[in-house]
Amino acid sequence: MQVNVDRESRTPLYLQIKNQIRQLILSHSLQPGYRLPPERKLAAALGVNRSTVVNAYRELEADGLIESHVGRGTMVNFIPGGEAGEELYLTLPPVWRNFYSSRAGRMNNPFISNILDMVAREDTISFALGVPAQEFHPVEYFSSIISGLMNKEGSALFEHGPTAGHYPLREYLAGYMAKRAIQAGPENIIILSGSQQGLDLAAKVFIEPGDAVVIEEHTYMGAIQVFAAAGARIFSVPMDEEGLQVDVLEQVLARYRPKFIYTQPTYQNPSGIAMSLARRRELLRLAYRFHVPVLEDDPYSELHYEGGFLPSLKSLDTSDHVIYLSTFSKVISPGLRLGWLAAPSDLARQLLMAKQLDDLHCNTLAQSVVNEFCRAGLLQAHLAMVREEYRKRRDAMLASLEEFAPPGLCWSRPAGGFHIWCSLPEGVHAGALLSRAVEKKVTFVPGDVFCANAGGTDRLRLSFSRCSETIIREGIRRFCTVLSKMINTGHGLDEAARQRQDLGQLF
Amino acid sequence: MQVNVDRESRTPLYLQIKNQIRQLILSHSLQPGYRLPPERKLAAALGVNRSTVVNAYRELEADGLIESHVGRGTMVNFIPGGEAGEELYLTLPPVWRNFYSSRAGRMNNPFISNILDMVAREDTISFALGVPAQEFHPVEYFSSIISGLMNKEGSALFEHGPTAGHYPLREYLAGYMAKRAIQAGPENIIILSGSQQGLDLAAKVFIEPGDAVVIEEHTYMGAIQVFAAAGARIFSVPMDEEGLQVDVLEQVLARYRPKFIYTQPTYQNPSGIAMSLARRRELLRLAYRFHVPVLEDDPYSELHYEGGFLPSLKSLDTSDHVIYLSTFSKVISPGLRLGWLAAPSDLARQLLMAKQLDDLHCNTLAQSVVNEFCRAGLLQAHLAMVREEYRKRRDAMLASLEEFAPPGLCWSRPAGGFHIWCSLPEGVHAGALLSRAVEKKVTFVPGDVFCANAGGTDRLRLSFSRCSETIIREGIRRFCTVLSKMINTGHGLDEAARQRQDLGQLF
Repeated sequence: MQVNVDRESRTPLYLQIKNQIRQLILSHSLQPGYRLPPERKLAAALGVNRSTVVNAYRELEADGLIESHVGRGTMVNFIPGGEAGEELYLTLPPVWRNFYSSRAGRMNNPFISNILDMVAREDTISFALGVPAQEFHPVEYFSSIISGLMNKEGSALFEHGPTAGHYPLREYLAGYMAKRAIQAGPENIIILSGSQQGLDLAAKVFIEPGDAVVIEEHTYMGAIQVFAAAGARIFSVPMDEEGLQVDVLEQVLARYRPKFIYTQPTYQNPSGIAMSLARRRELLRLAYRFHVPVLEDDPYSELHYEGGFLPSLKSLDTSDHVIYLSTFSKVISPGLRLGWLAAPSDLARQLLMAKQLDDLHCNTLAQSVVNEFCRAGLLQAHLAMVREEYRKRRDAMLASLEEFAPPGLCWSRPAGGFHIWCSLPEGVHAGALLSRAVEKKVTFVPGDVFCANAGGTDRLRLSFSRCSETIIREGIRRFCTVLSKMINTGHGLDEAARQRQDLGQLF
Repeated sequence: MQVNVDRESRTPLYLQIKNQIRQLILSHSLQPGYRLPPERKLAAALGVNRSTVVNAYRELEADGLIESHVGRGTMVNFIPGGEAGEELYLTLPPVWRNFYSSRAGRMNNPFISNILDMVAREDTISFALGVPAQEFHPVEYFSSIISGLMNKEGSALFEHGPTAGHYPLREYLAGYMAKRAIQAGPENIIILSGSQQGLDLAAKVFIEPGDAVVIEEHTYMGAIQVFAAAGARIFSVPMDEEGLQVDVLEQVLARYRPKFIYTQPTYQNPSGIAMSLARRRELLRLAYRFHVPVLEDDPYSELHYEGGFLPSLKSLDTSDHVIYLSTFSKVISPGLRLGWLAAPSDLARQLLMAKQLDDLHCNTLAQSVVNEFCRAGLLQAHLAMVREEYRKRRDAMLASLEEFAPPGLCWSRPAGGFHIWCSLPEGVHAGALLSRAVEKKVTFVPGDVFCANAGGTDRLRLSFSRCSETIIREGIRRFCTVLSKMINTGHGLDEAARQRQDLGQLF
């Protein structure tokens, strides 16, 4: 008899036991006459009090499903059919996990949803969110654009639109990308409900369970999760300061014949690394040689603070191997839920088939607003402003780290994007540090979240985009205080590190 | 040697042949020394002119990939490695279909995307779109709600929000559903990017390739397609004027143990049928008996024109078997891309995991606008208005059909919703009729689109929601003229029917 208890459920334990036995009886898995285990024995097997099982059996007996016989134990009753039986069925809700697909079993990490819930928490200094600062959303412009559109377009703003997206916006994006040496016509472009949707569409169109996919050693968690949910075998290729290590990549491509290489070449999340031009060319050459498409995720390239604009893989691609993905979430506002992709025509058509079954098309008003915003030249002006501001915030965070960091903490110096990637002193576990930091009202994202496999527990991501320079300094001060205390007291350190610490205190 | 030609492609045939052989050579599928088939033979096999193959071979020879030897035929050259070889790789784009998943192969029906492209075509009277009339979108209210929100909330309207949706809107929906006897708290509700997303989430969470799913004999095409793409075996249960035939359903449930029953009990799309109360209860009893969840899609229940509001399956569900799905697309405006689902807590949590990987969350502004609209009591007022208007349109279409229909055309008389479901005179194929109707500037949706399997070619759907009464009369006049002409001339009728027609003309 298979019965489990879930101690985290709100359903009392006795009721969990009762419900499961009831279902086993009603589904005829336990036949009339079957002898239930003695209360004491079942209690021991489940690790619950005997009284819990007693209560469960008592209720089952009251429902007429089982009967106790002195000397013979407790047995399953014969359940009459007809009305009485049906009434019993009526009271038994489904155990939903019995109905789930294997894909559902691979979708069990609530991290993204949890982090989104934290957006509006005000008492804590958050370096956890890699999104634009609320105060930079161009609300005034949006306001006047919307009233203008309402007068001009009226009800058309609430109509269905094409699955591929608002045509003028696709046309704008074709021109915008052309200026960055990407050749893509409106027919190659699909407007997405955020670039997350592009990852989902790519997973749907490419990934068969068991297929190999290549990612960077640490990367955007939403990509890892969506590829994993689709059943991909995920191969992480290490990075150095020039980006993806192409010599390792070559071996992985030769060995595993992946469906695609997922990469963020420019100001990678979480590392902030910008892939060198030589590496970009080498990556493409390998993609061509091994006939492997490249999914280039490029949310940050406009947010460069030094060194100028870097060419995308798509712009270097002479053989249509690159699928380009970007978003308005980082350069304008994430609540718009708008991104886009550019793909060769054949593939764009197939991605469109997938998109129509996802959500038909994106919000019509949002697409029109962004189109007007961009065409009025406001995107360029906005970018000039935020680049300047985010550069200051980056510098403030780097300076605060210089000022407060205890020995052993290392960090990156990104030329663009939103993130600083830290490596912790030996023995400090990012998860343990986070729980202490939360108490002191400062948060970040621990590194393991960005890793497909084990690893990353000695790393963490600090995002500087959402806090003013003053707040950044205070947040880094708190963060470093927590970290220093952890190192100095040894509390929360890994066992091995604590032992070394103890030895150190002896001498 | 595997070479295919695609006559619908824009790539010239000779180039298609050249590219494929080139890829075979570069991927080493054709080894150096391999003898290519003679030009004449390959031309015959592919059904192309000999000169097409000659041109293909000539280009391959010019690229140094093959060589003709008098008396020995055409052979694959040895390709040197290094720079020259790599240059060749650089010019060869991927054949994308070689990379697709089996799911992608099941996503090949562009119907929804095509119909969305037709939204704004003005020269034709369209009975094809089952969406609200453009003139009823509450633009004035939206306009003032948005300016109010912009002043009050400002930048918060462009921030990330929770994956489950804007909390006040979920709270409103909990109250709204409670008035319809559905018990669901905000924690049971997920705001969706249209109810299409709910279908996609259900497919992801429940369907393993090969799983059985039960649908109604004819139903929403987006549901059929998303279940089919997920690899479901789809079983259609026939309907009569009371809805799903539960006696047949019972057999299907007993035989195939489906993952869920997908049903639109109220003013079903396309049939307009409202399931009787007795059938609803019987359907639930069967769901309980066979332990099968029910996915209730309820877009139309508020759009009732006679007979009052019908209880949803969810409101009758005493055992948490029903997942409830609805949308703002039919009662307010489809361009908002907002719908919602209500599910038992365990399941809601799992659906949320899937939603976070789809698009993180829905457009923030749209959710706030709808929340304000509903909470100001405007939804109820709007519904009262549109019910009245759509009832007139339905009556106009019914009256026009009475006036113009040729003998043999039958149609439904729906008590709510947007659709009239027609059955064509014997021998008239809805697809053939549509191509003639389009010429005469009137459109509808042929019935086969709503069927998972063969069938429906003698049915069609006329949607009355988007046209004024005058336009409806003119459209139905055109439609009936085309149909009558087809019957009277026999052109375009099925062969069997034409023969009977000929016989009829003889006597």
